[in-house]
Amino acid sequence: MSVARTFDVDSQVRLAANEAKGEAVSDVIFRMSCRHQEAYTVYSGEGVLEPKSSPLPELLRGRKALLVTTPTVARLYGNLFDELAEYHGLPVKTLTLSCSENTKSLELVGEICRAALEYSLDRKGLLIALGGGVCSDLVTLAASMIRRGISHIRIPTTLIGQVDAGVGVKGAVNFDGKKSFLGVFYPPESVIIDPLFLKTLPVSHLRYGLAEILKIAIACDAALFRQVAAHSGRLVRSGFQAPFLCSRRVLRRAAARMLEELQENLYEDQGYRRLVDMGHTFSPVIEAASGYALHHGEAVAIDVAISATISLGLRLITEAERNEIVAALVESGLPIYAELVTEELCLKAMRDAALHRGGAMNLVIPSRIGQAVFLERADDLPLGVLRNALSRLADEGRENINQGDAFSAHG
Amino acid sequence: MSVARTFDVDSQVRLAANEAKGEAVSDVIFRMSCRHQEAYTVYSGEGVLEPKSSPLPELLRGRKALLVTTPTVARLYGNLFDELAEYHGLPVKTLTLSCSENTKSLELVGEICRAALEYSLDRKGLLIALGGGVCSDLVTLAASMIRRGISHIRIPTTLIGQVDAGVGVKGAVNFDGKKSFLGVFYPPESVIIDPLFLKTLPVSHLRYGLAEILKIAIACDAALFRQVAAHSGRLVRSGFQAPFLCSRRVLRRAAARMLEELQENLYEDQGYRRLVDMGHTFSPVIEAASGYALHHGEAVAIDVAISATISLGLRLITEAERNEIVAALVESGLPIYAELVTEELCLKAMRDAALHRGGAMNLVIPSRIGQAVFLERADDLPLGVLRNALSRLADEGRENINQGDAFSAHG
Repeated sequence: MSVARTFDVDSQVRLAANEAKGEAVSDVIFRMSCRHQEAYTVYSGEGVLEPKSSPLPELLRGRKALLVTTPTVARLYGNLFDELAEYHGLPVKTLTLSCSENTKSLELVGEICRAALEYSLDRKGLLIALGGGVCSDLVTLAASMIRRGISHIRIPTTLIGQVDAGVGVKGAVNFDGKKSFLGVFYPPESVIIDPLFLKTLPVSHLRYGLAEILKIAIACDAALFRQVAAHSGRLVRSGFQAPFLCSRRVLRRAAARMLEELQENLYEDQGYRRLVDMGHTFSPVIEAASGYALHHGEAVAIDVAISATISLGLRLITEAERNEIVAALVESGLPIYAELVTEELCLKAMRDAALHRGGAMNLVIPSRIGQAVFLERADDLPLGVLRNALSRLADEGRENINQGDAFSAHG
Repeated sequence: MSVARTFDVDSQVRLAANEAKGEAVSDVIFRMSCRHQEAYTVYSGEGVLEPKSSPLPELLRGRKALLVTTPTVARLYGNLFDELAEYHGLPVKTLTLSCSENTKSLELVGEICRAALEYSLDRKGLLIALGGGVCSDLVTLAASMIRRGISHIRIPTTLIGQVDAGVGVKGAVNFDGKKSFLGVFYPPESVIIDPLFLKTLPVSHLRYGLAEILKIAIACDAALFRQVAAHSGRLVRSGFQAPFLCSRRVLRRAAARMLEELQENLYEDQGYRRLVDMGHTFSPVIEAASGYALHHGEAVAIDVAISATISLGLRLITEAERNEIVAALVESGLPIYAELVTEELCLKAMRDAALHRGGAMNLVIPSRIGQAVFLERADDLPLGVLRNALSRLADEGRENINQGDAFSAHG
């Protein structure tokens, strides 16, 4: 071990000691192995807040819990939850936190910790996140720190939460203006997906969720894609309640696909080629350039449209399949283009992605619906191909606007 | 799975779906397995800050690092470190933080995170903790959160840090008046133990460290105990530099024993019977009752003396070995008694310990030097035995005071 050799004085100690006592003295005192193994279950079912059907009493097993939720969710579902808790005598206290994607901070995590301390949660106590991605982000980070880590259960109430952000192991907050600068990988104890919450979700949020569903479907599940594409309008209009069987199947399948992909690289330490990064190369920069006027889901939709059109330019996907992808986005009410998306912005996004992905850009582009490939380096993408893709999407986006639809985003 | 059964509406969906499509739809969408494996190395050697012998350039491998240290360490070793960094062109910036055991807070963790952000540490960047246990606590927690977890290296400069607090995987801060309420288990990338730092450590701190060394030696290493007992006075007077070979051997062996014990239950999820809890049942309550006028190391010494005397009362250890233990504490300049240590206080400590140890008190008492047993329940300790132990230690403590030594603590 060459690190050992550098300790000169120490070598003398070792020699002297060896001579004096015949005792082995080494520069490496100990090699500590840190193995950690857990598992969690993602359930799906209707009526998580219904006294007669809720799985919560069984999952809590009498443990004290702090439920963290948001003002909107508390207004819509607070009474239902209180009735459930009373019916089963659950030792649960509620904390309602005003929070948003741009105000989630270490201070809000501190508020959760303070409530946990006041409520005397011990090492066996747990947190429950009842809300969207921000609520789950804050609860995950708080749970990871309270008494060196307590359990938490996630009940995502948004579509993005149910198929994407809420089912994994990540939690993060913004810090000093830097998005998600502080965070953890900290597995929940369980996740409960109840599609009934989607009834009360604004149409725009359902669309953002559809962007993530389409992303994972395009990357690895053609059947899922075709189901969503065939029914996206009705799914959005019905709050994901109709067509009923289709809605349930889409939700389960999208979550399952996401979880399968996450499982491969749960701690993001197994390399930087991830299918779930489809739609996530250009989108962070697009979102930021809009000053977050464009929602993450909208930026993802634009990114997917660009990626599919690039793939066509590289002759990796057929014109028909590329058009199917773009049409599915458009029919879901998602943008495929925004004025601010310039060639320069895309090139910056490609450089940023390489910085985050260990030096390789790894742009994920569909090679057919349900299958994707990686463009590893910026050189793999001729400038002309990018330029043509952007110009075609600009035309198509404008055309859609002229037809009176909201297919091109503001900003 | 009975949780699954509770979702009634869902069962209907499943039935309908199965009938309609022959497709399996289950209440359990996914079972996620979360496996995490790392390892770290604890090195020992002289001259970690010497340009010619330092292992730091090799351990940093060109990565950007933020060194976090305290005002005292910066005053004593700041120049040396700067010379080392300049000599090797290390991309390291220093942050000097005023912090103490009772002021370590989430805000100070935030200061480290802010400095890391300002210095543009990326996911490959790392933190270095150069200081005592508090510095290591803060750095561990910051490293666990920055960009969802970056690496950190620990260079403990105190004796407790080098044989106990600094070599494990824990980090914590106080929160709203609650000691160590927020924390993590987060392994360092490596730990470097350099005994030369101990030269400048105050005598009192060397004694506190000896308390932890004696604790681990009494619990599981008779040879280590005899070495320390034979030389404790000289070790303290020389800043752990003489007798030289003895000092080096004691440091390595104490750290190695500690690490071996920690390895068995690194995440404290494998039960609550830990030999390293010797001296840590009565001490937290003693420390707190003194308003932290008694140092943790002093409280540990008193706890070890009580535990050994209880063991004698239960006829589990011989009078001679019990006296050897008490004498070793006394000769190290550590207290074996304090006025505030009452029967009531000890009973409260036993109840507290049971709360923290999953319902079992698990008092660790020596059955001989180098070997210990657990008293699982409070009932295993007759009140008379506790009472006699306290009264004997009070007598011996007072006797030592009358002889003009500082063997009984203030407070």
